[in-house]
Amino acid sequence: MILDDDLALAHRLADAAGAAIRPYFRARFAQEQKADASPVTQADREAEAAIRAILARERPGDGVIGEEYGADRPDAERVWVLDPIDGTRAFIAGRPIFGTLIALMAGGEPMLGVIDQPIARERWAGGPAGTSLNGQPVRTRGCVGLVNASLATTSPHLFDGSDMAAFLRVANAVSQGSLRQNIIYGGDCYNYGLLAAGHLDLVIEAGLQLYDYAALVPVVRGAGGAVADWSGRPLTRGSDGRVIALGDARLLDPVLALLAGR
Amino acid sequence: MILDDDLALAHRLADAAGAAIRPYFRARFAQEQKADASPVTQADREAEAAIRAILARERPGDGVIGEEYGADRPDAERVWVLDPIDGTRAFIAGRPIFGTLIALMAGGEPMLGVIDQPIARERWAGGPAGTSLNGQPVRTRGCVGLVNASLATTSPHLFDGSDMAAFLRVANAVSQGSLRQNIIYGGDCYNYGLLAAGHLDLVIEAGLQLYDYAALVPVVRGAGGAVADWSGRPLTRGSDGRVIALGDARLLDPVLALLAGR
Repeated sequence: MILDDDLALAHRLADAAGAAIRPYFRARFAQEQKADASPVTQADREAEAAIRAILARERPGDGVIGEEYGADRPDAERVWVLDPIDGTRAFIAGRPIFGTLIALMAGGEPMLGVIDQPIARERWAGGPAGTSLNGQPVRTRGCVGLVNASLATTSPHLFDGSDMAAFLRVANAVSQGSLRQNIIYGGDCYNYGLLAAGHLDLVIEAGLQLYDYAALVPVVRGAGGAVADWSGRPLTRGSDGRVIALGDARLLDPVLALLAGR
Repeated sequence: MILDDDLALAHRLADAAGAAIRPYFRARFAQEQKADASPVTQADREAEAAIRAILARERPGDGVIGEEYGADRPDAERVWVLDPIDGTRAFIAGRPIFGTLIALMAGGEPMLGVIDQPIARERWAGGPAGTSLNGQPVRTRGCVGLVNASLATTSPHLFDGSDMAAFLRVANAVSQGSLRQNIIYGGDCYNYGLLAAGHLDLVIEAGLQLYDYAALVPVVRGAGGAVADWSGRPLTRGSDGRVIALGDARLLDPVLALLAGR
């Protein structure tokens, strides 16, 4: 069950995470530093700790699953799922398109989601009432056919051998013969925000964890898009980390067929 | 020969391009629109026209080579080289990490370069006096060995078969066995700015045109880095479009050896 002020709380959680993260962005990273003292690690931990402190105070009965500090009461009816910095490599490289991901799951299903970019100060928030970007409602765009769809994925190295072959079947279908044309790499969670706002048609990824995908579901669905695993099933806690998101749900079946090699 | 106020002029050119581009960023793109009326095409053209109008007035004897409007006096001693929107796919997808590229070549060599990001309002300017980001001097970082270098490239599809094999030899060398670790995709010209500011160690690309790489050279060199073709030669008008940039020039020889398969 979702409470009336859960969305307002999610915004405050994102505010707290952003305040923790900003001082570490583009901080010089000495390569001899231990990994556990690197700016990205510190930013990750401080942001998740800031979120957890608020949740402990305001929603003491809810569960929390986070990338940095693991699971508290993961079997609670309501569980907050947190990835303080999705796009670690983008953060380290100084790209302002990483994101903080905050989801509220109820009964095992993602109900509210926030994708927050604390440097560019862009925030997507999605739920049953729709999806907004910085407070303005956004909608995905229609796409009449795969041949002109623009496709995003973070890195080819996230696909193992057979997943890569499946991805390339879709990539070839959107590219009219030239793989350069309609495919953009990099982007992490930011791609799903851009899809929700009508600037991309398709995101295909693999190897994601629950905290990578839980927040994306309400953002994409609330904007009118579709999000599923590579078999077309809804994303839940037990999903295998292979994700597709579409601005226009009419493309779901053809994309699933290509992924399956049918 | 470079004039005292060429750098100030380059900033004004970037200002004019940014003003032309900003209204088209994230403009909704109807897929049935003709390609030549798309927001990115209009932004590209208006930005280059704005730059050319200033150059015609203030540097009537200089040559101009631009992505959109071709070459005027390309054999002049001084030639301005323009790419109003480098990272077309990033622009279309709504990522604020595309860039306007402005170079001044003298005697066939890139002497001044600007990489301007008009949405995030970040501007790298490089020349004989060094490189700045929004007016503050920046330097590349040192990198003690390839094994921990962070590597960026825009898209694997820019490499043909043998270039891809060469790229993967370097990718494997920086990745300690896991290609996911130290490689980031996407980014276009923005990667070179981040390298100049000390956030990336290595950028490797292929298939670039003169207007894609001319502005990068002074930005990277002015920050203390090295930039060359895949044989280690300086980038000039006749280069083959295969580019490497390094924050720490000591890595140049090992990277060249890997690219060459030695």
